[in-house]
Parts: sequence; structure tokens; C-alpha cells
Amino acid sequence: MKKDFVDTSDFTKEELLYIANLGILIKKNIKAGFPLNVLYHKTLGMIFEQSSTRTRVSFETAMTQLGGHAQYLAPGQIQLGKHETYYDTAKVLSRLVDILMARVQKHETIVELAKNADIPVINGMSDYNHPTQEMGDLITMLEHLPAGKRFEDCKVVFVGDATQVCASLMMTVTKLGGHFVHFGPKGFQLNEHFQEIGRKNCEISGGSILVTDDEEAIVGADFVYTDVWYGLYEAELSEEERNRIFYPKYQVDMDMMNKASANSKFMHCLPATRNEEVTDEVMDSPRSIAFDEAENRLTAMRALLVYFMGVADTTEKICRRNLGI
Amino acid sequence: MKKDFVDTSDFTKEELLYIANLGILIKKNIKAGFPLNVLYHKTLGMIFEQSSTRTRVSFETAMTQLGGHAQYLAPGQIQLGKHETYYDTAKVLSRLVDILMARVQKHETIVELAKNADIPVINGMSDYNHPTQEMGDLITMLEHLPAGKRFEDCKVVFVGDATQVCASLMMTVTKLGGHFVHFGPKGFQLNEHFQEIGRKNCEISGGSILVTDDEEAIVGADFVYTDVWYGLYEAELSEEERNRIFYPKYQVDMDMMNKASANSKFMHCLPATRNEEVTDEVMDSPRSIAFDEAENRLTAMRALLVYFMGVADTTEKICRRNLGI
Amino acid sequence: MKKDFVDTSDFTKEELLYIANLGILIKKNIKAGFPLNVLYHKTLGMIFEQSSTRTRVSFETAMTQLGGHAQYLAPGQIQLGKHETYYDTAKVLSRLVDILMARVQKHETIVELAKNADIPVINGMSDYNHPTQEMGDLITMLEHLPAGKRFEDCKVVFVGDATQVCASLMMTVTKLGGHFVHFGPKGFQLNEHFQEIGRKNCEISGGSILVTDDEEAIVGADFVYTDVWYGLYEAELSEEERNRIFYPKYQVDMDMMNKASANSKFMHCLPATRNEEVTDEVMDSPRSIAFDEAENRLTAMRALLVYFMGVADTTEKICRRNLGI
Repeated sequence: MKKDFVDTSDFTKEELLYIANLGILIKKNIKAGFPLNVLYHKTLGMIFEQSSTRTRVSFETAMTQLGGHAQYLAPGQIQLGKHETYYDTAKVLSRLVDILMARVQKHETIVELAKNADIPVINGMSDYNHPTQEMGDLITMLEHLPAGKRFEDCKVVFVGDATQVCASLMMTVTKLGGHFVHFGPKGFQLNEHFQEIGRKNCEISGGSILVTDDEEAIVGADFVYTDVWYGLYEAELSEEERNRIFYPKYQVDMDMMNKASANSKFMHCLPATRNEEVTDEVMDSPRSIAFDEAENRLTAMRALLVYFMGVADTTEKICRRNLGI
Repeated sequence: MKKDFVDTSDFTKEELLYIANLGILIKKNIKAGFPLNVLYHKTLGMIFEQSSTRTRVSFETAMTQLGGHAQYLAPGQIQLGKHETYYDTAKVLSRLVDILMARVQKHETIVELAKNADIPVINGMSDYNHPTQEMGDLITMLEHLPAGKRFEDCKVVFVGDATQVCASLMMTVTKLGGHFVHFGPKGFQLNEHFQEIGRKNCEISGGSILVTDDEEAIVGADFVYTDVWYGLYEAELSEEERNRIFYPKYQVDMDMMNKASANSKFMHCLPATRNEEVTDEVMDSPRSIAFDEAENRLTAMRALLVYFMGVADTTEKICRRNLGI
Repeated sequence: MKKDFVDTSDFTKEELLYIANLGILIKKNIKAGFPLNVLYHKTLGMIFEQSSTRTRVSFETAMTQLGGHAQYLAPGQIQLGKHETYYDTAKVLSRLVDILMARVQKHETIVELAKNADIPVINGMSDYNHPTQEMGDLITMLEHLPAGKRFEDCKVVFVGDATQVCASLMMTVTKLGGHFVHFGPKGFQLNEHFQEIGRKNCEISGGSILVTDDEEAIVGADFVYTDVWYGLYEAELSEEERNRIFYPKYQVDMDMMNKASANSKFMHCLPATRNEEVTDEVMDSPRSIAFDEAENRLTAMRALLVYFMGVADTTEKICRRNLGI
């Protein structure tokens, strides 16, 4: 039976950790110069209803590095659910490519594609969540754990607007047993649907979730994460409005980073509007791991492609043999 | 001398059958997991004056599976016959890629490209014909021949509007000695030019051609084929107009399928407007081979690329050795 | 330290000749049928702020022939310097691909990309220069040197408007010690900035530079080069205006070719507006090497990719061993 990657909620903590560690292993193998061909001559179909740089480039590079090829279907080239039914599109593409990813406007679209396709389908971001970002972020946090701390001991604070990235980060952190805070203004906080998912995750994992506009919530954070203050709404906020709502309280500056902890790390899914949600000083400091995080989109894509194409075991063996570990 | 694939009328029955069977052989080889590299490091240039999913995806997957790469030149990226002459474009691309395909607005464009290029040129559909679809359809019919029947014994009925797909299907079926019927309303029937091609094909092949609006023509059909009722005219028909012309007489429903024969197969080049030219019941029944047909676009592309790149013999030998046949 | 290819002025005559000859060697290797994999599984990111056929197709083919893959980021897909800073874009792409090329609207953009990226950056044309065209043109002239002449003995006349291609050709020819003339109407001649670069080049190389509207300047030319009369300005000239300025004096016809020398060769970066800046008679005569020049875009791209990816020595060894030279 084929599996899809539509929502991390469909996976256990162990599965997510397995994929994250597989990504780290493949990354080591490639950095050491050992070519992989575990997806030799395989094709990833990439459907973008919205344009994207990071997601598209990292998937395409990943396929090349694994011996396969990614086809880029730009916005407008396939109109999902318009000229033909989701069912028909899914069935046809299942005959012509080996695995699909889609960045969609409506979450329903990726759910329908996955349901009807006979091949694995990966969610490249919807209006609900951003699970490939989650995997890259998880990998980044695992690579930057504070000395002597386990992930379960870490506090992760997302500052600002409850974007899909915020929701997705919360889902991973609570699933993995970490301590998650959304520090954002009322009206822009994670909704009850997501908070309920977080609380259920915590019952199993022992983690915690807090949604608040109290700035003391930042204290003790190991990871401070933010995202842009606009761009994710049907009705965009003007620059003036978003500044009135978020500035200066929710801007990540060096004071906030220091209030978090002496060694807190800064994360951002990028692109950033510098000196709006984050200052240059933070972005350009050694405490920013935002570019490592960008690189780990690629780390995540390789692992996801290998895992959902059913070649995780083989890949692990090859990498371990290459690296002598 | 390089050869082009602009019109199946330029080829004999034997040549078309050779290409079809080559496609079936390569498909078996790939399904059995044997990689091919007969187009190793070769480049297909794909020019699209109109966008397309099936044609583009199947060509691009085919090149990857054969060890090469397909470059996608989207509508607007090359304007054939505008900024420079066909001659100049053809000469330049002949130096930069190994083989070309183009989906063009005007048939003259593909003819000019082929005439001036020094490399093989494949017609990915024009306003006149759709020969790669023909090859995929031929392969699909060969794979689904009724028990005990040769292709020459089969009756193929195209229902509805005389689209390029209708004309193309007629050209293959009559060339191969089958029995072709276009069942469509007056004013939307295959024109005299195409009927003349069909009659000439039949003189050689022993096949037959009939163009009619008599619904009794469906009786005895082994394959019932249809296409959308709009989308191919400069002046599009409104939904109301096309329903007035085609509905209900030319809608393929289960009654029509049963009137054809107890085991008649349903074909559609897709995308389909469900419950317009074909009912859900037919599309979703086991008698529909429309998705096999979609897959055979890829089967056809692989064979065409191999054949026109001059590596058919080598490929056949490799596949036979791999498969032990 | 990574190196970039933004401007040939950053390189010595010896370096440019080395790259040109490397290109000729790789071309021989590939024409002889020996596959190369010196960029195995590597990714070139191609950013186009303006669309382009020749540059894009030749880079993409080059990467395939070298065992890697080129990602095409079409105009609008990445907006350099808009949604995020050059710095952030450069840092992110440095993590996701191995080498970058960009065709940019403003020269400053390619300079900023190169300055901030941690990977090599190649200028695929700006409003200032067109260095990959320069390399292809240099290779083409080296391949078509008049019998018994060294490049340093050659006269190269660019006829018409002082486009980037004109400026770029001047920079290579004077750097290499050849004799360059820009024959164009006042107001459309190479500006003082470029003439100063040319004069400085000549001081070192022993070449010469002349900018003139005197038609006698064509006499003795080994290579006659032209480009379109429009298309490179913010405010385009109308056909009427440009004919008034350039026609008939600056149209390359057979009389001009013969006035140059009995064996003069015609060059054009293409696309050409036939019978505007050049007559059919010249374009279609054996003295035109414009299509060889188009092919040498590919020759240049392969050499540039190999050189800036740091595998020139390895590639040279492989090619020499393959070719037995």
C-alpha cells in the first residue's frame, strides 16, 4: 500500500524521527561525496498552484542527487479540479510519473489528490499546513540541540502570526514531546482546532503547548522562530495595519533573543522581511540558523522522497556502508 | 538522413506496427525494472505553443527513463516564426539539442520546423492531427484486442465531433486495415480531405471507413472512442450550443456501450468532461481503458524517441536480452 | 575561494584562452561520443529575469552532457532584490544548488548575487555585458581563423548599434590582442567607458580599437559582426526610426562583406531580423558562421561550467585520454 505525506498528524513520533534521522544520514553521505542512485530514472511530478522557490528548488535538487528527475508543472499548467476531476488527474499522473508533490491553494486539493492517486503524494504546503517545512525544521533543531539537552527538554517559541508554518511547527514540537509556545497577539493566535491537536499530542508525548500574548513566555526558549506578518491571507493586511498589530512587541530583536536565553537560536522559514518581523542584527548574528534551516529543506526532501518511494532501508544500508558507520 | 514524425500518413503499416511493438517491448523492459540508457545524456527540446499536461509529462518521463533529459519550452518562451524565421530557429536548435518535439497552433509550423531542422522533429499535436496520440491509441488497442480477433477484424467507432484526435484515429485504423466509423452530427463530421485519406488507406489495407449520423453504426464496435465537445475551435461553442448539437444522441453511456457489443471497450484521449460526452458510469466501468490509454502516451513516446534517434535496433536487443525473449 | 564569471575584464588573456580551448577540447570529446560525468548529480540554478532561448537551452544541454541538471527559474519565479534581499537569496540558493547563472535586467543584480553567494555565479547577460556570448564568439573565431593568421593578426568589425554584444566583443578582441572596429552611427557608438577599457586592454595586448562611422573602416576585416537594431533599450525605436538611422549604410550585405575581404566571415549573435541588419544573401552564404556561433554558445557553457566548478584539470585529462591526444 502506498503512503502519502499530507499531514504529520498521520505519523507517529517514531516515524517522524526515523525520517529526520534518515535525512541527516543521507546529508552526510552526499557531503562526503558518495553519489546515490536509489531513485535512478524515477520521476517526481511537482504541481505548483502557487509559485515557490525553496520548495521547488530543494525537491528538484533532491531528485537529481538521488539519480532521478523532477518535472516542474508551474502555476496554471495543471488546473487541479477544473478541466477534469481530481480523480481523473490523479489516475493519469499515477500512470506517467512515480511520485507526486503539490503546493496547493486549498488543503482539500492535496487530500483529494492523495486519496485518488495510486502513487505517493507529498504536501508541499497548503492553506492548512506545511509538513515538508516541519521536517526541515525538526532536522535543524535536532542538529542544533543545546549542549546536554534532549529535544524533549527544549522550549520552542513561535513569535507573531499563526501562519501555516506556526501551526506546522506546533504539530511537530508537541508530537515529539517538546515545549511549544505561540507568542502572538489576540486575533492572530493558533485557533482552537490546532490547540486541540497540540494538547492531544502532549497527552501522549509529555510535551506542552501554550498560546499567549504575554511577553514573559519567551523566557527560557531554546529556539525562537518567526515568519512574515503578511502574505497568507486572502485579504492582505497593509504594511501600516500589520505594524500596528505586531510592532514592536512581536519583532524578534536581540533583546528578545537574550530574554529567551543566552544561547537561544533564531529560526525563520524565509523569505524574511528584514527589520519588520526580525532585525538585521538577529538575522546576521551567529545565533541565526535560518540558512541551515533553508538547507534542511533539501535534507528533508531527500528523506521524504526515499521514504515514500519505499527505498529507505536500501538507502540507509548504502549510506552506512559508504560512511563506514 | 534524419526522419521526422509529422504525420502517420508518411509511414507504412509495417513501420507503424514496428514502432507500436517496440513501445510494448520497452514498456515490458521498464516494468520489469531494467534501466535503459539508450539516450544517455541526450536532450529532447520540447516546444509548446499551447500548454499540455499529458504530452509534456509523458515525453519528459520518457527521456528520463531512457537516460536523457527533456527541456520544457513553455508557451511564449519561443515564438516560432515571429522574432526569427522558422529556418533560423530550426538551424539553431539543431545545434543545441538532439531531437525536437513541438505542439503547435498551425500545422504549417511543424512542417516548417521539420523541413528546416537537421535533427528529428516530432509533432506533439497541431490543428490538423495528433500522431503521438495515434501511436498510444494503436498500442492500447493492440493490448486490448478482443479474444481471437486480429486488429484487421476490429471495428472502431469514434463518437462526436471531428477533432484532430478523431482524424488521427481514423488515419491509423484505416492504415492498419481496421474498420473505422465516425458517428457524428452533420457539420461536425470528418471532412472530405480526411475521408479521401481514409479511402486510399483502405484500398491498400483492406479496411473500411464510414462517416454517418446513423446511430445503428455503433453496432458491432469493439472500441468506442470519444473526445470533448469543445476546445478545438477558434470560436468556442457555448455549453448550451454544444449540448443542443451533441446531447443526448452522441453521449457515450452504458446503453451505447452495450449496443456496440457486450465486450466493447471505451477510449478517451482525456481530459474528459464527465457526464457531457461520456457518463461517469462508462468512465468508471471496467470497460473503460482510458487510463491505460493515458499510460500508453508514455509507451508511445519512448518508442518514438528511440526510433527517430536511430537506436531502435540496439534498444530491441537490450530489451530482449534483459527479458530473455 | 570560489570564482565568478561576471565580466571578462576580471580575467587575463591566458585565462580566457584556457577556457576557450577547454571548450574546444570538450566539444571534440562529446562529438566523438565519449560521455562525460564531471558534474555528476550537480545542479545549476538558472535565474532568468528576461526570457532567452539560446542561453537557457545551451546551459541546460551542457549540464545534461556533463552528468548534471539545470533548473530553469523563469522570469517572475524569483524576483531578485524584491521579496527578500540579494544577500538572503544568494545565501539560500548557495545551500540548495551547486552553481548559479542569471540573466538580469540590471548589471548590479549579477554583481550583488556574485558578491553574496558562496557558490560560483555566471552572468548570462546584463544590460552591461554578455560574457558567455563573448566566450562562444572567441571560440568561433579561433575555429575560423583565416589560413596562416593568428588571432592577433585579425581585424574584427562590429557593424551597427553599440549593444551589449558589441561591447562584449570589443572587450574580448582587445584583451586577446586583435584589432577591433565599431562601425556605427554617431549617437549609437560604444561609449567612452567602454573605449577606455578597450584602450587599456590594447596597451597590454598590442591590439587596437577604433570607433567610427567611416565606411572605409570595414576594409580588411576578417570577421564582420552585427546585431539587431532594436530590442535593448527601455524606449524602443520604431522600425521607421531605426531604418532612418542605420539603413542602408549599416546593413551587412554582400557588397560590405566583399569590401571587408574576399574571405571575410559573417557573425551574428542571433536572433536576426533578416533583410534589416543583414541580408538573406549574407545569412545564407557559406561565409556566414552564425550557426557555428550559436552552437558555440553550448561549447562555451560546457567550458565555463567545468572551469568554475573546479573540475577543469580532471576534465582535460579525461578528454585527452578519451581522444588519445
